[in-house]
Amino acid sequence: MRDIYVLSEAMLRQCVHLDLQAIEVVEGAFAALASGTVIMPPIMSMELHDVHGEVDVKTAYIPGLDSFAIKMSPGFFGNPKVGLPSVNGLMIVFAAKTGLVEALLLDNGYLTDVRTAAAGAVAARHLAPERVTTATVVGTGVQARLQSIAAHLVRPFKTLNVWGRDLDKADACAKDITDATGADCRAVSDLEAAVRASELLVTTTPARESLIKADWLHPGLHITAMGSDQAGKHELDPGALAKADLYVCDRVSQCAALGELHVAIDAGTMPADASPPELGDIVTGKAVGRMSDNQITVCDLTGTGAQDTAISTYAVKAATAAGLGTIIQA
Amino acid sequence: MRDIYVLSEAMLRQCVHLDLQAIEVVEGAFAALASGTVIMPPIMSMELHDVHGEVDVKTAYIPGLDSFAIKMSPGFFGNPKVGLPSVNGLMIVFAAKTGLVEALLLDNGYLTDVRTAAAGAVAARHLAPERVTTATVVGTGVQARLQSIAAHLVRPFKTLNVWGRDLDKADACAKDITDATGADCRAVSDLEAAVRASELLVTTTPARESLIKADWLHPGLHITAMGSDQAGKHELDPGALAKADLYVCDRVSQCAALGELHVAIDAGTMPADASPPELGDIVTGKAVGRMSDNQITVCDLTGTGAQDTAISTYAVKAATAAGLGTIIQA
Repeated sequence: MRDIYVLSEAMLRQCVHLDLQAIEVVEGAFAALASGTVIMPPIMSMELHDVHGEVDVKTAYIPGLDSFAIKMSPGFFGNPKVGLPSVNGLMIVFAAKTGLVEALLLDNGYLTDVRTAAAGAVAARHLAPERVTTATVVGTGVQARLQSIAAHLVRPFKTLNVWGRDLDKADACAKDITDATGADCRAVSDLEAAVRASELLVTTTPARESLIKADWLHPGLHITAMGSDQAGKHELDPGALAKADLYVCDRVSQCAALGELHVAIDAGTMPADASPPELGDIVTGKAVGRMSDNQITVCDLTGTGAQDTAISTYAVKAATAAGLGTIIQA
Repeated sequence: MRDIYVLSEAMLRQCVHLDLQAIEVVEGAFAALASGTVIMPPIMSMELHDVHGEVDVKTAYIPGLDSFAIKMSPGFFGNPKVGLPSVNGLMIVFAAKTGLVEALLLDNGYLTDVRTAAAGAVAARHLAPERVTTATVVGTGVQARLQSIAAHLVRPFKTLNVWGRDLDKADACAKDITDATGADCRAVSDLEAAVRASELLVTTTPARESLIKADWLHPGLHITAMGSDQAGKHELDPGALAKADLYVCDRVSQCAALGELHVAIDAGTMPADASPPELGDIVTGKAVGRMSDNQITVCDLTGTGAQDTAISTYAVKAATAAGLGTIIQA
């Protein structure tokens, strides 16, 4: 019989926060990816049309970490109609040296939310202009909030524009971000004007059309596009990537299959064999990042198993240190 | 807060047995696969050379079942040196309609053992000659025992030859199978003679070389080869598949990547675009099975996520009916 730690969402919310430490952990995952030693298979995915659902499985093994995670993320979009959350999910943590199950993280997607927002902060830290006064976030959901809060930790903007199709939701989102950051956040209806006035733009929607026109990109703008995580989803004009002075992927193979890059290749605005640098290359200095405040940079985030392994290893340590967790025997 | 059932290996051993009911359940999974409605992504796999480990993830969605499983199977082959099992593993069971986690099956591979042996019985039921007097099993491990016991349920052989590289282990294995089946089981050292005398041959080893020569195949023999589940592993002479009157895969795409078929294609004894029938096609009558007692048939089993979903759904029902399980809240 062996002990397995079970950590509930409530416990994980108690010991893992979206802070500079979490950002460091995720930055470490990108640095590891750039080292070439990480084993990260393609995402396993099922589309379940008859139940309006999808399931993604991600994993990665990062040499040097004590554990690795396999993450399962079901999204069932009819659930809200029957009073259930559309997204849930959990991570199973295995000891790196023995493969034995160490912990079950029943986080309902919380750790994914944190590691996704933290990746946005890593992108902003390494690619946005040094000084960001005005930022814009597109979308009004959980990631709109968390990406803004994470970005503020590394680029403490004064003003944030929140754009969404529903102005009331944008307003509520802006209020939440003001509460969390102290910045002046407001809902806006003119997205073009907001983008043109910003040094940092984060897109967080599940859109399948170009919300951001290539025309709007201007010197001194950094864009992090994190909404597209499935073939067909995209938020940027396919021409935006080619217009950028520097376009960066979290993982090229994933972005070419699922991200903004996929749509740009389809549209012919990027070559099918495009090999842009990865965020980890920028983090480790293997590739050159932003070279001046006047450049246009774009970072395409699809979400990697390496981030899941990094945040879950961190979460298990944090929970253990805090004495949290229920033990079951197997 | 929602309830999640946790079932330990001991509980699962109490309510799921390798019997005709389990064989029916797995036969149903193959029938579903043949219907074309099952969603079964390619196996997710990591080879972890620096820790002498591997991890496989399998899943499938079978329309009509109440749940689907994602199975994680780590194998860390240095574990026995430190007193730990080399193989463990667990299945997560999700509600088919909502994607919510229903149960954690901490089975340490027990359900995989059962569904794998049950698949062997499905193959024997549909492909072996009606009357099997003598059978041979190659290998002396858990699957040698379970495959023999499962085969005996559908083809109650009188005599079983057990062949292994270690005669003592073969002897112990034969005794266990005698205890379970009442058949006359004995360890043998002459594999060729054993195969030539048998109507049913089951190979269960992790061999990477041809243990069974094509020459040995004779009219009236059915072979189930279930050891090869990774590229490079194989137990049959690459010529054996072409020599068979009927060669059947559990899943063609998997066998071409991992099974006996992979090695035969590499050896040029089978075409790269071979499209043999699948076991489900035989089960449902979409393809013709054995046509006479004199044919040679071969079934190549690599293990499918559909079997995992079927056995886990069955296990959850059996455990619930038996009042087994620990509840945790998430």
